[in-house]
Amino acid sequence: MTRLPAPFEREMRVYWEDTDAGGVVFFANYLKFFERARTEWLRALGFSQETMRLHTGVMFVVSHTQVRYLSPARLDDLLRVSVEIRELGRASMLLFQRAFCGQRLLAEGEIRIGCVSSSASLGSTPAADLKPTRIPAALIEAINQDCSDS
Amino acid sequence: MTRLPAPFEREMRVYWEDTDAGGVVFFANYLKFFERARTEWLRALGFSQETMRLHTGVMFVVSHTQVRYLSPARLDDLLRVSVEIRELGRASMLLFQRAFCGQRLLAEGEIRIGCVSSSASLGSTPAADLKPTRIPAALIEAINQDCSDS
Amino acid sequence: MTRLPAPFEREMRVYWEDTDAGGVVFFANYLKFFERARTEWLRALGFSQETMRLHTGVMFVVSHTQVRYLSPARLDDLLRVSVEIRELGRASMLLFQRAFCGQRLLAEGEIRIGCVSSSASLGSTPAADLKPTRIPAALIEAINQDCSDS
Amino acid sequence: MTRLPAPFEREMRVYWEDTDAGGVVFFANYLKFFERARTEWLRALGFSQETMRLHTGVMFVVSHTQVRYLSPARLDDLLRVSVEIRELGRASMLLFQRAFCGQRLLAEGEIRIGCVSSSASLGSTPAADLKPTRIPAALIEAINQDCSDS
Repeated sequence: MTRLPAPFEREMRVYWEDTDAGGVVFFANYLKFFERARTEWLRALGFSQETMRLHTGVMFVVSHTQVRYLSPARLDDLLRVSVEIRELGRASMLLFQRAFCGQRLLAEGEIRIGCVSSSASLGSTPAADLKPTRIPAALIEAINQDCSDS
Repeated sequence: MTRLPAPFEREMRVYWEDTDAGGVVFFANYLKFFERARTEWLRALGFSQETMRLHTGVMFVVSHTQVRYLSPARLDDLLRVSVEIRELGRASMLLFQRAFCGQRLLAEGEIRIGCVSSSASLGSTPAADLKPTRIPAALIEAINQDCSDS
Repeated sequence: MTRLPAPFEREMRVYWEDTDAGGVVFFANYLKFFERARTEWLRALGFSQETMRLHTGVMFVVSHTQVRYLSPARLDDLLRVSVEIRELGRASMLLFQRAFCGQRLLAEGEIRIGCVSSSASLGSTPAADLKPTRIPAALIEAINQDCSDS
Repeated sequence: MTRLPAPFEREMRVYWEDTDAGGVVFFANYLKFFERARTEWLRALGFSQETMRLHTGVMFVVSHTQVRYLSPARLDDLLRVSVEIRELGRASMLLFQRAFCGQRLLAEGEIRIGCVSSSASLGSTPAADLKPTRIPAALIEAINQDCSDS
């Protein structure tokens, strides 16, 4: 009997800044929570996006998001936000992400991120001239290693 | 030959707060831009969400979002954000929204919003106890009137 | 020789959402970081603002902020944000807060928060009708206890 | 009898994203509103910050903010946000800014912004290496012209 690998998870607290006048978390902020979890997931795999961007000009950009909002979260709630890989391509990957409060599912969605490289020069910004590029081999390896370890 | 009605559009400027370290608009902020345009569209139809919420306890909540990010926007860009109705149900509607900079399409997506009512009492927040409810008849009428006028 | 009590501190990571097109943390976001630290400080003292608000109608509001921005933080930086009490009044308190990255001071400021109570009724929002009120005695006690323990 | 020049003003609407669970505008967002007004004020004087940054490497950074929060604003409120010059130095200026809803003063504060230049190179971000620099002469001239015109 095989056991599915546990998804990467990260806890985060709901603060005033995350809520709206409805008294609950503003729906668009789940994309922020998902992004934080992705960043922590990459860090857990040994990858700092800032280092990657500054040293190699390679960064991830979000190309598609799909989110279902199922149950509201409130100020002071402690959320768990997960990251699972659905597809791992050469230049992009599809992630499945969920936000929970306790056992209650708040939101879930699919996020497609693509790997791009920029050739920033004086006065230009990193995202000015982006071209799809291969996901760094070391990251692919770390992801595959992580899956087989789980 | 029938002419499609022009979608509702709203202009908005990209400010520092909207950008991220990639030098472009942070992807999650398109959901904010889309929300602003929906609010202005409702206002143009004669509906203030705050008045609706305070007087009748009825509010709209977002239940599903799907967004494709096609081209980056930068600080100082002037965006046009559109709203079109895809489906108009009794308690929810599906909207198609797009953000442009000039003729360049930056992002587009479908947003499903549902109508809910709350029975707020002392110490509770409006979103605490939400039940699906019918979209106000006057709003349905205003939407249909608007379509036939276009 | 007396030793000053160590200020309350909280770590937080800089994510994409916190940065702007300058490549660094958007200055207004330090107020968010400071607010997160205050919330965690209150929680560490045994006070949940959401519980307080829902059960007693009492909440804290910010009445004055003053912040100096000294050094930029970047994506992936791990910040430490501190909270120290400067003045503890009957209905308000003045807090001194700082954000560090390692030993580097990024921003520091004074935040005055006041205690208010709302008498929310059907259809009104908690902040609709706010009156200054005394800080809960149990919180004053917890703060004084905390100081003498340090 | 001299007449004081009218301050620059800009209208902006309060959207869901601006509010918090207190039912009113989240206090930190006034810094965003003030920033939008400053950007529009610079644009009205003929200066695009993005063009300035990309072509000359010169940008404005906020070095100090002080804000008093006097009265809450709510969803759908139409705010007027003003900009007035208090001090105009060689490399920095002090601005006095206020936010109104109708005749009601919501928040007011002083914002100090400094002019800096960056020498961005491959892989570095514009704010990575910032040095104080003179405010562009053309901007000083436009400001002085604007004052004498009022």
